[in-house]
Formats: sequence, structure tokens, C-alpha cells
Amino acid sequence: MNEMLDNDGVSRRSFLSGSGKVLAGAALASTVIGSQVGKADAYEYSTGYKYVKLDPAEVGQVAYENYFKRWCASSVIAGFVEPLKTKAGGQWKEFPIDAMRWAHGGMAGWGALCGTLTGAGVIIGMVTNETDVAEQMANDIAFYYSYTEMPVFTPKKVLKSELADMTIAGTPVCHISVGRWMRSAGEAFLSDARAERCARLAADIAMETARMLNAWSDGTYKAKHKPLYNVAANGITSQNNCMDCHGDRVPSAENYRTLEK
Amino acid sequence: MNEMLDNDGVSRRSFLSGSGKVLAGAALASTVIGSQVGKADAYEYSTGYKYVKLDPAEVGQVAYENYFKRWCASSVIAGFVEPLKTKAGGQWKEFPIDAMRWAHGGMAGWGALCGTLTGAGVIIGMVTNETDVAEQMANDIAFYYSYTEMPVFTPKKVLKSELADMTIAGTPVCHISVGRWMRSAGEAFLSDARAERCARLAADIAMETARMLNAWSDGTYKAKHKPLYNVAANGITSQNNCMDCHGDRVPSAENYRTLEK
Repeated sequence: MNEMLDNDGVSRRSFLSGSGKVLAGAALASTVIGSQVGKADAYEYSTGYKYVKLDPAEVGQVAYENYFKRWCASSVIAGFVEPLKTKAGGQWKEFPIDAMRWAHGGMAGWGALCGTLTGAGVIIGMVTNETDVAEQMANDIAFYYSYTEMPVFTPKKVLKSELADMTIAGTPVCHISVGRWMRSAGEAFLSDARAERCARLAADIAMETARMLNAWSDGTYKAKHKPLYNVAANGITSQNNCMDCHGDRVPSAENYRTLEK
Repeated sequence: MNEMLDNDGVSRRSFLSGSGKVLAGAALASTVIGSQVGKADAYEYSTGYKYVKLDPAEVGQVAYENYFKRWCASSVIAGFVEPLKTKAGGQWKEFPIDAMRWAHGGMAGWGALCGTLTGAGVIIGMVTNETDVAEQMANDIAFYYSYTEMPVFTPKKVLKSELADMTIAGTPVCHISVGRWMRSAGEAFLSDARAERCARLAADIAMETARMLNAWSDGTYKAKHKPLYNVAANGITSQNNCMDCHGDRVPSAENYRTLEK
């Protein structure tokens, strides 16, 4: 990772001035949320999608290879559905992998939630049959995505471009995640290198999801992170990267457009 | 809608200084993207989830009623799956509605993509069987979400709270959408009014999705908005609300926390 955004303007001061109160309030809010969104609201549900443990390396390789046709969300889904079609059978044989292709680019290119996470979430939700377990895994994969230097995955055969740059997204938001990598690598959005980066990222997210689901299958999965921590800390659905958006040292659109040349 | 963010700091100037070039470049980029992401990469896929036309008012009412148990994403899904179980049957009878509950609050409360849109996208992708049609509908519902004053839906029976405030989100991002409404209404995230707002919003998004799918079923659906316009305009996956984040007149966390009192 070559850089992280740092802001020191008015917004930072206004955020930080309230930080003591935020921390003091977090414990209380956490209790309130615990009672509203915790076990009391969790329940089991039935799903016909049976899981058998998969080799994370295989899942990652399939996701990577699928990216260049199916993009981020559906390539993560393909990483699971393709092997599960034969290894678990049943409803997986009919699962329309491409049904989530629209989720690429943070929903049809709108840059919101990274499609690899939508894809991972679909598999997590189809496989696990308890809302609190799916919630914990979704939260854990969002943390993994946000705070792991990626891409780490190395394909058996490079399909688009050699890569050197890794970045820490700091967020599950596509626009910030891909923008930070583009700035580090000096590559345009429509470049082969950016496509290769997202393909390898899809593999990384699929592999971590496979590791979680394998642990769940063994009965050993435990949440690594507290669900809804961000809601408790900030009083609103949110992330831990407030200053990535709420500052004045942000890249202009022109920064990205010059990369097209 | 009582307010919209307005920014006039350094960031706005740096954004706007490049706007001429952005507009000039958009046509070229649009052509490039058209060739890379247009019909050439679109394809049909098979799906066993058959659609029959539904009454949007019924879809909205079911989504609304489900919200208080299943939250945003799965309540939109319930709006379709519950009536389709009986009216279309087949694979809908086995669809695990709760499998997408994790998508609430922009993914387990992270505030990214509004879960109503994840829910709508799941149904769109399961029903339509062409990647470009699903892409167009996902893009159209993201535009509808972002630029329609909502919630509009009026339930048969109010389940949580009377509501007066409507807002224009300007984005498909949960954090900004709900934050803007909270500031307009003066309500905390954990309030009954905020839950009621998101329940009615789920109904609105489900109803618009039903209108699109009904038109598609009749063979009359046409995209209202150009797909990937934002990528072409900004050279990156993005939205049209740059200054909602990239400015210095943004709300502090303390603004939201004071609402808890």
C-alpha cells in the first residue's frame, strides 16, 4: 500500500471534537443495539443449498477465471457454485450464477458495495441457516475486505496483467477501494491491470469465505468481530473510515480521468 | 425534503475546475465503455425462477409488513417470493427469503449499498435471463432510489410510527440516504420512526421493481437511464453526488449521536 488518505481540515476537527462523547456513548448504544438486534431477533431459516467443504485454493482459482466474463459478484458465486454442483448437487445445479452479475462495480457501476462482498454474502446466506451466523460472517468478511492488504491471490496462469500493487481499502465501498488501488498503481479503471486486480480480489474474498464456511461446516466458526459495532459507535449505519469521505483532501474526478491517457 | 447538502470548499472547486474536461471526455469514454461492456459482453443465462405479473400494491404491502422482522433486503425479496410461491410456484417455493437478511444497513450495518436495492437486484437477476436487461433494471432502480422523494408508500395499517418526512437520497448508499432522512426528521437510527421510514422505503423500491418486471413480462420494458453513465463520466465506478462525501460541510458523528437523546 503506497498511501492512505489523511485529512486535517474543518471536518476532522468537528469529528474528533466529539470523539470522547462517541466513545462514552458507544457502550450504552451497544447495549441498546444488543437488545434490539441480538439473539432476540435472530432465528433459523430453511435452505435447500447444502454445503460440503471446499478447497479454498480451488474456489479462488475458479473465481479468478470467471471474473473476465462475469465480473466481481458472480465470479465469487461461481467459485462456490461450480464445484458444489458436482460435490453437493441438489439445488446448486440450478443456481443461476449470472443472476448477481448486476452487482458488479458496487451495483451496475454506482460504486457502492463491492460486488465481491455481495457475491460472498449470497453464498453465506444460502448456506448458513441462522440469521445471526450469516450476520457474523457478513460482518467478518467486510472487516477482512476492509483491512487486508490485497490482492494476495496468485493465479495459476495470469490472464490479463502482471500486478505489483496491493492496497488496504479501509472500506467495503467499491469506489474508494478501487480508487485507492488505481491511485497507488497509476492505472485507469478500464485498464487490464485494474481488471486483473479485481479478479484477484474476487479470488481472495472467495477464499476467505470458503475458510469461514469450512470452519462452520466443522462446527468451529466463531465471529472475529463484533456485529453492528459501527452502528453502536456512530449512531448510524456506517464504517470506520469517516475521513475517507468527510474531509477536504480527497481526489478530484480529474485525478482519475488523467489515468485514461 | 427539508435540506440537501451543499458544499463550497476547496474540494468543490477542484471538482468543478475539471468539469469541462469531464464532459468532453465523457463521450469518448462512453464509446470505449460501450464497446467493452455493451452488447458484446451481454449474454443470456438460464434461470428456473418464473415470473408472473404481480400487483405492485400487494408487493409493497408484503415488503412493508416483513420489514420489522426481516429488514430491508429480505423484506423486498419477501414482497415477491411470498406471492410468487403460490402464483408461479416451482423454485420460488424453496427460495430462502432470509438468505439476504445480512444485506440490511448496507451490509450488516456498514452503510454501503442500501439493502432494498440488494433485495431488488436479487429478484431482478433471478427473474430476467439476460445480463444486459438485469443491468439496465439495476441501474434504473438505483436512479429511482436516488432521485425520488421517499417514502411515498402508505401502509394499510401503520405498524410502528406515523411519518411526515420525505427526502431525496441522491445516492444508493445507506449511510447517506438514512442520514439525510434522520437529519430531516430529527429522529435517531434506533427510533420507531426510522424503522418505519425504511419499511416504507422497502415497499416503494419493491413496487417500482414490480412495475419494471411487469413491463418486462409484457415485453414493454425499456431502460430509462444509460447504464454505466457514472463510470463514463468520472472514469471510475461512482455516483452523481460527489460533493455529498467530498466536501467539508458534512455532518459530524456528533450530529447523529445527539439524536439518541
